[in-house]
Formats: sequence, C-alpha cells, structure tokens
Amino acid sequence: MNELTSWVAVPADSDFPIQNLPFGIFSTSERTKRVGVAIGDQIVDLKALHMLGYLENLPFTLADFEAPVLNPMIARGKQATRELRNRLVKLLDASRPDLRDKEHHVGQILVPQSEAAMHLPVEIGDYTDFYSSEDHARNVGKMFRDPENALLPNWKHLPVGYHGRASSIVVSGTPLKRPHGQMRPDPAAPPTFGPSRLLDFELEMAFITYPGKPLGDPISMAEAEDYIFGLTLFNDWSARDIQAWEYVPLGPFLGKNFGSTMSPWVVTLDALEPYRIPGPDQVDPPVLPYLQVTSPGHFDVDLAVEIVPESGPGAVVCRSNLKHMYWNMAQQLTHHTVNGCNVRGGDVMASGTISGPEPGSFGSMLEISWRGSKPFAMPDGSERKFIQDGDTVRLTGCASAPGKPRIGFGSAEGLILPA
Amino acid sequence: MNELTSWVAVPADSDFPIQNLPFGIFSTSERTKRVGVAIGDQIVDLKALHMLGYLENLPFTLADFEAPVLNPMIARGKQATRELRNRLVKLLDASRPDLRDKEHHVGQILVPQSEAAMHLPVEIGDYTDFYSSEDHARNVGKMFRDPENALLPNWKHLPVGYHGRASSIVVSGTPLKRPHGQMRPDPAAPPTFGPSRLLDFELEMAFITYPGKPLGDPISMAEAEDYIFGLTLFNDWSARDIQAWEYVPLGPFLGKNFGSTMSPWVVTLDALEPYRIPGPDQVDPPVLPYLQVTSPGHFDVDLAVEIVPESGPGAVVCRSNLKHMYWNMAQQLTHHTVNGCNVRGGDVMASGTISGPEPGSFGSMLEISWRGSKPFAMPDGSERKFIQDGDTVRLTGCASAPGKPRIGFGSAEGLILPA
Repeated sequence: MNELTSWVAVPADSDFPIQNLPFGIFSTSERTKRVGVAIGDQIVDLKALHMLGYLENLPFTLADFEAPVLNPMIARGKQATRELRNRLVKLLDASRPDLRDKEHHVGQILVPQSEAAMHLPVEIGDYTDFYSSEDHARNVGKMFRDPENALLPNWKHLPVGYHGRASSIVVSGTPLKRPHGQMRPDPAAPPTFGPSRLLDFELEMAFITYPGKPLGDPISMAEAEDYIFGLTLFNDWSARDIQAWEYVPLGPFLGKNFGSTMSPWVVTLDALEPYRIPGPDQVDPPVLPYLQVTSPGHFDVDLAVEIVPESGPGAVVCRSNLKHMYWNMAQQLTHHTVNGCNVRGGDVMASGTISGPEPGSFGSMLEISWRGSKPFAMPDGSERKFIQDGDTVRLTGCASAPGKPRIGFGSAEGLILPA
Repeated sequence: MNELTSWVAVPADSDFPIQNLPFGIFSTSERTKRVGVAIGDQIVDLKALHMLGYLENLPFTLADFEAPVLNPMIARGKQATRELRNRLVKLLDASRPDLRDKEHHVGQILVPQSEAAMHLPVEIGDYTDFYSSEDHARNVGKMFRDPENALLPNWKHLPVGYHGRASSIVVSGTPLKRPHGQMRPDPAAPPTFGPSRLLDFELEMAFITYPGKPLGDPISMAEAEDYIFGLTLFNDWSARDIQAWEYVPLGPFLGKNFGSTMSPWVVTLDALEPYRIPGPDQVDPPVLPYLQVTSPGHFDVDLAVEIVPESGPGAVVCRSNLKHMYWNMAQQLTHHTVNGCNVRGGDVMASGTISGPEPGSFGSMLEISWRGSKPFAMPDGSERKFIQDGDTVRLTGCASAPGKPRIGFGSAEGLILPA
C-alpha cells in the first residue's frame, strides 16, 4: 500500500496524488506563465518555490522555472528532473515539516487549479506521429485495403511513423474550427471544396523528449528511456475526407494539420514506473536486433474518450489502454534516430490511434462507426458517425490498480466550432 | 540596362550585385552571429550598420540584427523588410555619398565573405516539402507505378506535400553521415539493416515565411506572397532504399530526416521580381477556385547540381530551372493554410525535386540513372548511380538574362561521410 501521502489535501479520486507530480505551465491573473506541478486540486508554483530557497543544490536556475515553456527545465536532463521530482516529494510529504509548517510560504507556493489557466507545456521543435497500435492498423487495413491482409508488409518490422505539424498543436480547452479542404466524395466526379464532413478524433498519447544526441548519432534501445521526459494525452484530430484524397503517395497533410490537442500536465516515466508491463511478443516476424526489447517498456494506462454535445449529456464512446501498443516508446525513439536523425528537448512523439481488440475500445469514430456504417447512439437520441459542430471531445487517461497510487493525466478536451 | 551599381566592388560574375542583397546569418572570429547582407564578395553587417545610426526610422531594433537567426527581423513583416532593403540599396548606391565616403564606417560595416562562417538563416518552426514538379512526379510514377498513368489522380488538383523534419536541416557546408536504416532489397526475403546503398540528392528550392495568420484563418492566393520572405537552395537528401520500404502508407520518414542542406543566403521575392514569369496553364483539369492563379507567380531561376568526388574533378549532373514547377509558391502556401493551418515566421516550405522535361534536367540520381539502369559517367572514369561516400553534392542557382541583373543564390553543398 502507499504509505506516502501529502500534507496537501488530495481527494481520493484525484489524478494527482503525491506519487504523480506532473509538470505543466500555468498562469493566473497575478502570476505570469511559469512551471508548476499538480497535486490534488492545487498547483505547486516552482518559481515561487525556487525563490523561497526550497530548490537549492539542484541543477536548475530561477530562469528554468519562470520560462513560459518546460523546455529549459527539460534541457537539464533526466537526472536533474528526477532529482527535482524527488525533492518535491520530500517537500510535499505529510511526514516532513520543512515546508508543511511554513504557513506563509505555503500560501505563496500553492495555487488552486481552478484559478489557473494552463498552457501548452513545451515549445515543440518537431512533432512525429506513429501508427503503433496493431488493432488500429488492422481496422484501417480491413476497411480500406484487403481484409485478408490488413497489415502492410512493413508494419511488424518497424514502427511506421510520419512527421506532423508542430505549429497547430494546442493545449486542452482550445476550440478548433472544422477545417475546409479539398476532397473527392465521388471518385467518378471532380474533387470538391468545402468543410470536412468526416471530422474525427484519434485517441493517442504523446511523449516529450529530453535533448537527444547530435545529428548523426543514434539512440539505442538501452538508452532510449533516458531521453523520454514524460507523457500526455493527445488528440490527433483528423478530417477523413480530406485525408483520403490527399494522402497518396506522401502521407497525411491537411487532413491532420488543422489542429491537435494536448493535455497540459506531463506525467513523468518515473511516476508511471508502478505500471510498467511487458509488451507483446515480437517473434512473428522477429524484429531486427536494433529494435529488440530486453526489458518491459509498455505501460498500463486506461484511456477513455467522451463526446459531449453542445446541449446534451455526453457519452463515453471508447475505453482503451496504452498497453495495446505493439511498438513501445523506446522502440519508436530508437527507430526514429537510427538513421542519425536528431531529437531536441520538447519534441513530441505521438503513439498513433490506440485501439484495443474489442469494438468498445476503438480509438476513432472511423473505427467506432466502421466508416459510418454503424452510427453510435448518443444519450440525447442523436447519432454520431463522425464529430459534429458543437461537440466537445474529451480524452482522459489514468493508471490505477489495487494497492497502487492513481497516476492520472487529467484531460485533453477540444470543442469543434463550425467551419 | 541596370544603371544601379554599388560603391562596393562587385565582380561581374558575382551572385550578389546591389540588386540582390540577400539576407543571412554570419559570424567571424571577432563578431558573434548576426544578420548580414551579401554584396559582391563582402557582407554588410546590419548590427554594425544599426549601431552607427544608418538604419534609423525603420521598424527594427538592434536586437533584430544581433539575433543568431533571421526570425526576429522577419517577424517585422514584409513592409518592414522591404523598407530595410530599400534603405540598404540607397546606402550602397555608388551615386550616394552617405556611407560611401565615411571610410572608417565602411571599415566597420563590411566583412569579407572569405573571413566569415555562415549559419542556418532561420530557426525553423515547421518544414514542409512539396512535390510540385510535374516532370519529377511523372518520372517517379513511370518508374514505380504505371507508365501509362504516371501521375496520381490528385496530383493536378492540389499541390501534394508532407511534413518533414526541421531539426536535421543544416546549413551548406555541413557534412552528413550516410544513414543506417531498415530496407528490403529482396521482397521475398526479410528486411535487412545497414547503411543505405541508394543515397540520393534532390534538387529543390525552399521558401521562408513571414508570420502568418492565427490558427483557423486561411491565407488566400491574393495574400500569399505577402507571407513569403525569400528563397534558398535546398537539397532534400534521400535514402531511396529506406524510403521504399517505410513509406507506405504514411509517407517518407527516415529516408529523408537524416539531413537536408540549405544555402545560407535568403534571396527576397523583391530581388527576384525581374524574373517573374507565368506558370503553366492549369486548365486540364481546371484547378479549384481557391488555387487559381490570377497573376504570374512563377520565377525563372537556372539551377545546377554538381557532384565532386573526394579526389577527382566534379561533374554537373543536372541543369534545371525553377520555372518547371507546376504549382507555384503562392499556391503551395494557400493550399497549406486553407484548412486553417497556421504558419510561423521562419517556416520552410520546399518545392520538391525540380526536374525539367529533358534527361539532363532531372533533379535526382534516381531519375538521372533511371533507378540505377543508366549510370552517369564521371570525368575520373567512375560511374554514379547514386551518391558515394566522399562525394560532395553542390546545388547552385542563379537568375540572369541580358539587360537584367544577375540574382544568384550561392550554393548548397554537402559532403557525404561514411556510415
């Protein structure tokens, strides 16, 4: 059982007990953007904590915490952020008086989450999206290619991925307009232009990197997790009709880059350690040596997607889990750099849609409604084949198990506005 | 004829007469990275020029010119950089004494290019690569798909593009290692891992953007050029064997992102104005209204590619021209933002391989050697199907015509090191 508790009140169902301590960027009417750590329904202001002297003898400067993004803090590397997190655990531990009993310090350091605005946690140098859930790849292959050979020949040999657009990644809570675009609904007629009619979400998680190696130097499987800072929820919004017409032969472009939604709190790998699990056997076919897993690198994180219409009650349309990935994060990062490609601190690498084997675990409306053939019945009597104007899509994620702390991710929410 | 000349000596064959004035980032042993403008074989130090008071009453601060990238200067927008360029023309005009006759100022302001190191001109937020040369797309289609239907159905309806990797774009002169990667040379056998055997260049040009509109607001054809700062040469190095195995269905990834080479001097659209020409008729099929060209948006720029082996003389393997593009830059930017995708100052959008209709104008070894079936004979007796270790690939570009100033781009060079 978790003996460790905090003197900060943490509701039992909170995503953010002292065992989590995710990092984010917040501001209030009185505080400019800066680094914070979530605990219960409070935020620990790391700038204030540093100014009051609680972060001495750690490899950080005040500038790292008063930055409007996590990049300077992340740039200090894994050992440094781990030491910082360990210090925070001590400071917040119910059994230690150091900060607990300094009432006027506590008042300067804690900010209610309800009073804060959250911001995109990192300045994203490059964003990569993988395609690493076997069930998702199979579902797409069955729908659009050959049901008997749903997986393409390369899929089990390498983590297929592509570069996405960094500029249009927004923090949870940012509304997005339905995109206009070119599509060809009738293959016998010329293409048309207008608002996307097949707007979809994709349930993903994303990891954020530490600064990697110089251009030309690969990161090995053994090293990969040393370059992974933490994870967020990630909605890779997709306009299926735009995507279908444009994506051959160079991949998704305008069907994706109108916006992606990221949750504001970055949960560290250290916090997720109790939920580390082995992944699937990768023996049929065997993966090449540079991608072979020698220690468990998957994580057991429950995920859910809720659609909340403008005026009606919401409905959970998907319950999935990060464990359904075929390729884990270490494999993704190793593959990404095996050709010498360099990674910078704050780069984002997303999982691809995380679908499980059962229909209730499919991570996109494309799969849930099976290309529109099986509409989802909403509580208000309406149906959803894809996302409608006024819908809010909310991704949530949480690792929990009896006897283990709840390590939650908060949510990644986005409202779709009319085109 | 050009009456305008500069009091700075400009050799007749220089890429950089007073009519060009491209912007770049340079440093010397005595000067930190800063903004410079090329003229003849000199660089005008804009930080020094500002400090000496020559840039007064322009919408720039000293910080814009002592930045290690052009982004702060570009962020001031098109009208501002145009006014700056006009001021520089006046200051460098042979008929004006303002700067010409201030000998000790001239000494502080001019730096020989031979004494300076050039750097990547911009911090690149996002890099997009298009695929806009019809001859290149046809050649690839003939080789890998159907010779009778070489162009895919979408190709003449939209400028096909994809997101590339910003982190691995390097300035001319930066050596790159031959990438390792996964490939499947024998489709009947499992994939293999090793150094790429089919390393290629791609002759491209790239444009650099001003800050665009907020997320959700498209840029129209009428507005597009107001958001384009200037152009460089661009080598989109490609590992064909890695690319061939990985790219289905999500596009190029590790076959490209091990490195791309950019020339250091950014030539403004204003400098290229004398070389503006109409593009191809786009009536079969007609393009959708949002992409229709109403005024000439193509440019006539001669391009060449030279391969220089480690110990032997070099050979020009390609002479092409930017005019061979089907889609122009305004169309690329308009399409890119039509779904609301936002563009930041310093983003890079490359043309795709620029091939002309004749074999001598093909812009990649893939096309020049026609998949390796027609090796190129080098002066030293060796052959090239693809790029060998120790080869330097040099892209050059220049607009010139009788009675018009020569507007050159310098070069984008890269040496390939062993894997």
